[in-house]
Order: sequence, then structure tokens, then C-alpha cells
Amino acid sequence: MKTLITCTIALGALVAEGRIVNVAEHGIVPGQDGTYALNSLIKSIENEPGVTLSFPKGDYEFHAENALEMHRAVANHDNGLKRMVFPLFNHRNITIEGNGSMFMMHGRVVPFTIERVEGITLRNFSIDWAQSFHAELKCIERDVEKKAAVFELDEKRYPHKIKNGQLLFDRMGQEDPIGSNMVWDPETRAPIYDTDRYALNSWKPIKVSKPGKNRIKIEGGFKKEPPPVGTILVAHGVHPTSRLCPAIHVTNSKDLKIENVVVHDAGGMGLIVERTENITLDGMKVTSTEERIVSTRADATHYIGCKGLIKVENCVFEHMLDDAINVHGAYVPVAEYLGNKELLCNISHFQQWGLTFGEPGDKVCLMSRLTVLPLFETTIEDIRILNEHRFVLTLKEVPEVMPNVPLSVENLTWYPDLVFRKNIVRENRARSILVTTKGKVLIEDNHLSSQMHGILIEGDNNKWYESGAVEDVVIRNNEFVNIGFACDNRYPLLASPLFNDTQHMGEGRYHRNIKFIDNTIRSFNGHMVEARSCEGLTISGNKMVFSTDYPAIEEGEAIKLDYCSNVSIVKNDAEGFAPLRITQTVDTESVTIKKNTGFQAAEGMKAAKN
Amino acid sequence: MKTLITCTIALGALVAEGRIVNVAEHGIVPGQDGTYALNSLIKSIENEPGVTLSFPKGDYEFHAENALEMHRAVANHDNGLKRMVFPLFNHRNITIEGNGSMFMMHGRVVPFTIERVEGITLRNFSIDWAQSFHAELKCIERDVEKKAAVFELDEKRYPHKIKNGQLLFDRMGQEDPIGSNMVWDPETRAPIYDTDRYALNSWKPIKVSKPGKNRIKIEGGFKKEPPPVGTILVAHGVHPTSRLCPAIHVTNSKDLKIENVVVHDAGGMGLIVERTENITLDGMKVTSTEERIVSTRADATHYIGCKGLIKVENCVFEHMLDDAINVHGAYVPVAEYLGNKELLCNISHFQQWGLTFGEPGDKVCLMSRLTVLPLFETTIEDIRILNEHRFVLTLKEVPEVMPNVPLSVENLTWYPDLVFRKNIVRENRARSILVTTKGKVLIEDNHLSSQMHGILIEGDNNKWYESGAVEDVVIRNNEFVNIGFACDNRYPLLASPLFNDTQHMGEGRYHRNIKFIDNTIRSFNGHMVEARSCEGLTISGNKMVFSTDYPAIEEGEAIKLDYCSNVSIVKNDAEGFAPLRITQTVDTESVTIKKNTGFQAAEGMKAAKN
Repeated sequence: MKTLITCTIALGALVAEGRIVNVAEHGIVPGQDGTYALNSLIKSIENEPGVTLSFPKGDYEFHAENALEMHRAVANHDNGLKRMVFPLFNHRNITIEGNGSMFMMHGRVVPFTIERVEGITLRNFSIDWAQSFHAELKCIERDVEKKAAVFELDEKRYPHKIKNGQLLFDRMGQEDPIGSNMVWDPETRAPIYDTDRYALNSWKPIKVSKPGKNRIKIEGGFKKEPPPVGTILVAHGVHPTSRLCPAIHVTNSKDLKIENVVVHDAGGMGLIVERTENITLDGMKVTSTEERIVSTRADATHYIGCKGLIKVENCVFEHMLDDAINVHGAYVPVAEYLGNKELLCNISHFQQWGLTFGEPGDKVCLMSRLTVLPLFETTIEDIRILNEHRFVLTLKEVPEVMPNVPLSVENLTWYPDLVFRKNIVRENRARSILVTTKGKVLIEDNHLSSQMHGILIEGDNNKWYESGAVEDVVIRNNEFVNIGFACDNRYPLLASPLFNDTQHMGEGRYHRNIKFIDNTIRSFNGHMVEARSCEGLTISGNKMVFSTDYPAIEEGEAIKLDYCSNVSIVKNDAEGFAPLRITQTVDTESVTIKKNTGFQAAEGMKAAKN
Repeated sequence: MKTLITCTIALGALVAEGRIVNVAEHGIVPGQDGTYALNSLIKSIENEPGVTLSFPKGDYEFHAENALEMHRAVANHDNGLKRMVFPLFNHRNITIEGNGSMFMMHGRVVPFTIERVEGITLRNFSIDWAQSFHAELKCIERDVEKKAAVFELDEKRYPHKIKNGQLLFDRMGQEDPIGSNMVWDPETRAPIYDTDRYALNSWKPIKVSKPGKNRIKIEGGFKKEPPPVGTILVAHGVHPTSRLCPAIHVTNSKDLKIENVVVHDAGGMGLIVERTENITLDGMKVTSTEERIVSTRADATHYIGCKGLIKVENCVFEHMLDDAINVHGAYVPVAEYLGNKELLCNISHFQQWGLTFGEPGDKVCLMSRLTVLPLFETTIEDIRILNEHRFVLTLKEVPEVMPNVPLSVENLTWYPDLVFRKNIVRENRARSILVTTKGKVLIEDNHLSSQMHGILIEGDNNKWYESGAVEDVVIRNNEFVNIGFACDNRYPLLASPLFNDTQHMGEGRYHRNIKFIDNTIRSFNGHMVEARSCEGLTISGNKMVFSTDYPAIEEGEAIKLDYCSNVSIVKNDAEGFAPLRITQTVDTESVTIKKNTGFQAAEGMKAAKN
């Protein structure tokens, strides 16, 4: 009865939006493979705007065998042939209403592919896989001296074999080696404190044997010591076969809404969005299940080259093997100036291969790859894709003399605003939030508890090639809890471009106008903000509270400024710590430090600026 | 001067056909990477019929970096992203006139991709790669007892490293293991006699070390003994990374001519043609260079699901690692009858994944997978591709009761006639000719000298899924020389479907009307014809001459009949052998044996039929 009522209400609420299609009438019913029928149904409504596909509440099964397939480039994933369960191309105002259903995937499929769609709502369902993309090995015995450990490894849930002394997981048609791995704590359901200590070094030889049913013994390879007994070693494979299947992939679309959608697993990210305008997430949840400690193989959500507003509210992101959110653009190196205003460009990070960098009419900036600072702004006249790595950009204008430095291009049109509010991020590997966009950013009222940085405002033109020096960021009223329990040097906020040895600071600062205000920081390490190459940084009204949840660390500064200017550090309050240090480099200018409690500025700073 | 004259004549002869474009005027000149300019030029003439792209004689270079790329399914190759040097799509009456030029490829590219083209001539050029797709290791020392050998391996031509005791070739962006391998004889420039003796067993562990510059030592793994000193071990990698780059790929096209084109290497076949009507090869040559003993990684030429006439004349095919020619269709297993005249079909051989099985209007046959015999003929109403493995076929009619046996489908519309005349096939691995087509086949005036069978008329519905029981084959006036120097049981002609254990003969015979007449066979093993499940077989006027080129083998029959009927063995002549035996199974019917010299029919046969 309850199912029927829920269903009726949901359907009732949608009538105004267009035709409601009950998928059961098209042969899509719980308990049997619905992929073929669903593919057919989706194709049949391609040209009909306003359709709601309504799934009566139930457990639906989607298998890979008969799924529509295409070669797909997916940013931050491994490109290749993808089988698709919901292949949504060119639809207008479509709603997928799950009514609380479970969509269970079988095999290497991408549940949602959304391309050139305007107006789409995904609502009220959960996504999971019958077989996971990672394996969880519970340590049941260890020998610290011999660097050996015995693990419990369920042969049914994680089918595997040993070949040439290598542990290989038989994972949906692939033989996946251990590859990336880390140790989790079943008590906290998060990565264990100082997890890197227990990881298997990918380049060290190990010996794997099978001492019994559901048992695996690993000798050698652990970085410092084998994982403590009772902890979980999570193994998640290698590139280019470990990030093939995001849960939801959106590209070249507009007006995406995701409401009350739960993602339990993914062979990649929960949500990856490229070149899309206006995205709203409300009540999305990325989380593991009772049976597994880890959820997605990579970020919960990730956005590259979007515009309009990204609004993320009331979400929970936990148990991922990477960040909760990353918003950025792409720096693409210029390989050669061909003359005729044509730039031969070379996408440099392998997980951006195949990216739509821009389209005619987009505003772009020519940058120095050495300083990562802008040189010249113009517009794309034409773009011609050569292959996944390279494209030729025809520009409206070029500088009279082409600068004699390594160049990159950046798309200025496709930067979004971001509102990230009332979300919970916790118990994941890596950071809570990464953001580099020229749009307005508001991060407020969140609970953030990640094992690396809380918020990382980076931008780099050498490693990930993630672009977007920020111009207006407000971070306020958030609760940061135990940030940095990976245990090396991490901050609730780190704002700094990432430079390599050949790159250096230029004339101007990279980031601008960052406000870090009224946040509460429960901290075992006394860290608050590290900033580099920032112009205009306000750190005020924040409260630091000492946490005993992890071993106290007394290293590094609470606030650390490097080549910053116009910095205001006012009315911050620290309790329970030895006075927290504030330092700056000599090229940092105009720092105001006042009315703080529990902080101690370095000698020169106090004299000069306080 | 000579260059200019050649060029003028060639250009002059073409004037009537349309516009002649000198590629030099578009920036494509010898000695520098011409890929980008050529891709652009080809695109620019897509809608202009009758163009000749004329390359002034020279050595042209084509690099992978800026080449146009697409995901491509290529029959009998490994599918994937392909970079293309000549991406010819939708062109009409186009000629590529090389004027004797060399087209040198750098990296993993497909030199020619021809799709939906009507009227195309490739003429007067050679294709080679700066780095080969295989490696040649010269044995300079061996220890038979220890199963060890030292090889000379040029580090520049075949860059390599040893990792975990494995030899890995650094081959155009891939790390290729030894994989498939065989030993060649520098004296004959062909596979060595009984080559399999010396091969490395793929599943046996080997130890590889580097005793000095340009030296590789391999211990263990050789099947019977290490290769003799002075011979060449050819190593050519593993699926799915060893057949990525055919030299010429043609699909869905019409009226293809290849004249005086030389292919020296390919990461796959020299020419692979799918679903194309009318193909003429005149003076094509597949051969190695002075520097290498082996030419293409796979067949010289291969045709799947074509129609019209395939005419191959005056060609030389040598030094390949597989057959000179293979003409066939595809059997595709039916996975499930979906009702509504819809068959869910499942392409079963991995190298046919992505094949265009048929299009609406094609006549198809429903077959028993057990007997490989036809059950029901009808027409394709619709075809819907799901993924590279599967498609749904809607048929015009289906049997009233769907037969209760495993089913396959075969496309009856797309079978070509074949004329294979005045060609030389020699010094290659495998067979000279494979042909299974329902069209008329004429094989005459050829010199055939391969180390497995000379002509294989097979058809199988379980391994390669190559379809096409023949109906009219004439093989006459050919010279077969030393066929079968692989040394196990091979024949100048083997006509027999390939069955597995679950398959069996049905009511009718599989092949029909094969004439093997007036051929000369220089033979060290006394083999002529083996036939199974053939109705109507004429073996007459053939001459067997004893050859001392390889060790004489006294095993097996000269003519061997199994489940054949209406066989005529007349006026064949054998010289220099002990009388050559003719045998038949008890289910063979209506055999006429007369006027043969040097042959001896088995007891029962002589009494009954001679």
C-alpha cells in the first residue's frame, strides 16, 4: 500500500510537467534485466519534451549484455567503449522519477549518460552495483617484523585468483590487480589515521598466497607496517582500467537537477559534469552500504568547464575514495603556433583527453605556462578536433608578437558560480572541496571532515591542469572537524596554485578575494589557513577548538602566508592549544592582524603590521 | 628528370577523370610530417567527385601526433581509437596517385581508412613504417641442453627493456611482450622448416637477461629446442594490442582499385575489406624490405561480407605472418528469439565485434549451429546495433515453429565472386588462399608456396565463425611448390568445414562443385587434396613432381575423401614418389578414379569405382 501511495503522490505532483510514462507498461519491471527495454523506451521519447519516466518503487536490475554502447571520452575517467543504461541524448525536460527504487547494475555499465539535454531531473532512486569496483580485505593477522598480513577476502563478493604471485580480481570481465590501495578503519568508517603507513607500495614486489578459503596472505610491500588487525585494506585497481564507469555522466547540457539520489558505488565518480549550464543537487547522497565500507572509486561529484550556477545543498558525501566536489576548468598547453591565428593545442592530462575545450564564441585567455598568469584575451573563431589529445583553435585575434614563452589556453566563458551549502562531507579519502572558478563561490553551513585538506583552492598548469584562479570566494559558518587525519600537513583551507620546478611567481598574485569567516574548526593539529599568491584574504571570526579524536600534532603554523597581499586576520579565537602561530614570507604585503585570541604572529609581523 | 617525366605521364593519363591536385601545393612535401595538411586536404574535397591527389615522387612522412582519430571497429583486427593518415569518408571517384612515392608512417596510424566511398583508386606508392610492429631477433648462440639461446637484437630498431624477467618492446607508445612468435630462415626468407619446434610456448615461463649491448638471452620456453644459430626469431605481440593498424581498411564502399601499391609492414593486415562491392587488385605487392625478413603482422589481404567481383591479378604476397587472401562471410550465433520476428544476435569471434552483419533488404539464412546447414531463408527488415557484440535483427518472416537447435544467421546477399590469377604467394606463415563464398571462384595461373595449406576452403561456425559453403570453385593451372613446410599434415587443397565436438555432419554436404584441375604440384610430402563434406569434386589433369627442397615425409594420403559424393579423380600424374594413396571413408559416395599414374587407390575404392 505504501508503495502505491508514494507513487501516486509523486505522479500527481508531476502532471503539470508533461506526459508521465509508467515504465512497467514498457516491460521494465523489478527482478529482471531491464536494460534493453529501457534503452528502447528512452530512444522512443527522444523528440518528446516533458516526459517523466516513472519507476514504480522496486528493485530494478540492469545488465551490461544488451546495453547500448558508444566510445565515450569522460573527463577524469578512462575513455573507451561505454555501455549505457540510461542513454539520454538530446532530450528536453525529462524527469527520471524513481519513487524510492533501487537501480542495481550488473557489469561494466554507465548508469546515466546525459548529453545535449536541456532540462533533466533525476529523482528519488539509488544506484548500486551487484559487484563492486573495489575489493575490501579485512586484516585478521599480521606479522610486523616480516611485513606480512593475512586478510579475509570473500570469494563470492570479490572473486579473485593468484597468477604469477599476483593477486588478480576477476571483476566484471577484467583481471584487475591490487593497484591503488589504502587502509580504512571499521570503527570510524573512514580511512584510518595516518593511513599511508599501511598502504602497499605499487612498485615494491609482494608475494601473495592463499592459506585457505577466503584467505589471502600478503608478504612485503607495506610501506611502514602491515595494517592493524581488524582494519580494511581497500584495493581499487590501476589506470587505464579502474575508472571506466561513473554513475552519472553529464556533458554539453543545461539545467540539470538531481534530487534525493543515492549513489552507493561507481567505477569512477558519482557524478561527473562537463560543459553544462546550471546544476542543482538537492539531497544527493554518496555513501557506502552495510556490506561495504567504501562508496565511489573517485570523487563524489566533479565539474569541469561548466557555467551558470552549481548549487549543492542538503547533500551527504561520505566513504568515497576521493573528494566530495571539485569545480574547475582546464589549462591546455599550446603545442605550436601554426600561423593564421591557429594554435595547435595538446591536452596534457590523460584524464582530460577528449575534453570539449571550447566552441566558437567562447572567450579564451592565452597564458604563460611559467607564471600561470594571463597574457592575452580573445575569442574562439573555430575549433577543429584532431584526436583525443589535440585540437586546432582558430582565434579572433592573436598578439602582434606571439610571446616567446610556453603558452596555455584557458576558457573564460565556461566558469560557474558555486553555492555549496548545508552539506555533510566526511569519512572519505582526500579533500572535502576543491574549487577553482572565476565565478562567485559561496561555501556555507557545511560539516566538513576529510582526511586531507578541507577546502583546496589550487589551480595548476603542470599536473592536473585544472584551471581557474578564483576571484570571489566566501567560506563561512562551516564546521571543520578533524581535517587532515591523513596526518601529514593539511589545512581546513589551502589556497595556492601548484607550481613545478620550472614555474615561478609572476608580477601579480594568482588568487583573489577569499573570505574565510565565522567557521568553527575542531582540530587536533591546530591548522587553519595556508595561502600562497593570494590578493585579498580575510580570515575572521573563526573559532578553533582543540579535538582529542586524533593524536595532537605540534607542527606547522595555524596561518601561513606566502606571497600574499591585503590580508586581514581579525577576531579569530583558539581554545585549548598552545598559542597558534601565524607566519608570512618576506614578499607578503599589507597584513592586518588584530583582536585574535590564542594566536601568536611571528616577530616581524607583529611589529610591522599589528 | 625521370621523376618529372613519370609524373607528367601519370597526370596526363588522368586528366579525363577530373581535377588533379598536386599535393605539394597544399604543403604536403617529402621530408616533413604531412599528416595534418593531408587530413585537411582530404576533408576539403569530400564533396568533389573525380579528384586525383597526385604526390610528386618522393619520400613522404606521416606522423601520428596530429592525425584525425576515431573509434573504429575493424574486422579481424583489434578495435579501438585509430589515427588516420588518409581518412577517406564519402568520397566519390577519388584517386590517390603516388607516382612511385614512399609513404613512411611514424607511430600507430592506419594509413588508409576508406568508408562509404564509391570509386577509389590507390596507385603507385609504397607504405612502410619507421618502426615495425614486430621484432626480429637473430640467434647467435644456443645451448640445446639448457634450452637457452642468445639473440642479437638491435636496440635502435627494436627498443626494448627487461621488466620482471619479461622482455618488453617499447613499440610506439606500447609495451609489447614477446607474445606470438616464430622462427624464420634467412636463406629462404621464409619460415624455417618445422618452425613450430623452435617457437616459444606462450604459457611457459622464460628467463630473459641482457648479456651485453644488442644481446638478449632467453632461457626455457622453447617448444622442442632453441632456434638454430643464424635463424631469426620473429616476435609480434599479443591480443588485444597487436593488430591495431592495418595498412588499408575499406568498409561499406564500392569499386575499389589498388594498382602497383607495395605494403612493407602493418600492425595487422595489408588490406582488410568489409562489405564492399567490386574490388580489383592489380600488381599489389606485400613484401618485406632489405632490413626486415617479415612484412605484415597478419594476412596480406582479407575480405569479409563483400559482393560483386574481387579480382586479384599480377600480385606478389610474401613474408607475411599470415595468409595471402581470405574471402568469407560471417556466421553470427542467435542468442535469443525475442518474439516479433526479432532475433538477438551475438557476434562470437572477438575479431568480428563491431561488424556490419547486414542491412535492411539483405537476404539471410537461419542455420543450425550443430550441422552448419541451412534451415530457413528470409530478408532483413531492420537491424538495430546494441553494442559491438550484439544486435537485434528484425526478419521479414520466421519459421512457424522456431527450430529447437542452437541457431546462427548468415548473410546471403553479401558473397562475392573471386578471380585470383597470375599471383605469387610464397615465403609466408600459414596458407596461400582461404576462400568461402557462395559466388563463383576462379583460382588460376598462380604460383603458391606456403608453409601450411595451399588453398583452404573451410567455413566454420565455432572458432573463427567464417561462413560461406562454396558452390562453384575452379582451381586450375596453378603451380604449388613445397606446400606444407610447416611440416605437419598440410595439403595444396583442403576443402572441409571445421567442426567442434558438439557439431556433426547433417543430411547434405557442406561444400559443392570444386574443380581442382591441371595444376602442377612440386611436393616433398606427396599431398594433393583432402576433402570432407563435399558434393561434386573433380581432381583431374594434375601433375605431382617430387621435390627435394625439404625432407621427404611419408605420411598421410595424396587424396583423402571424407563424407564426399560425386568425386572424379582422373588423369592425374605423379612422378618420383612411391605410389601415392587415395582413400575414402565409408560414407563417401560415387567416386570415379581412372587414368591416373603413380596413384594407388585404397582396396575397396579400386574394386568399387575404378
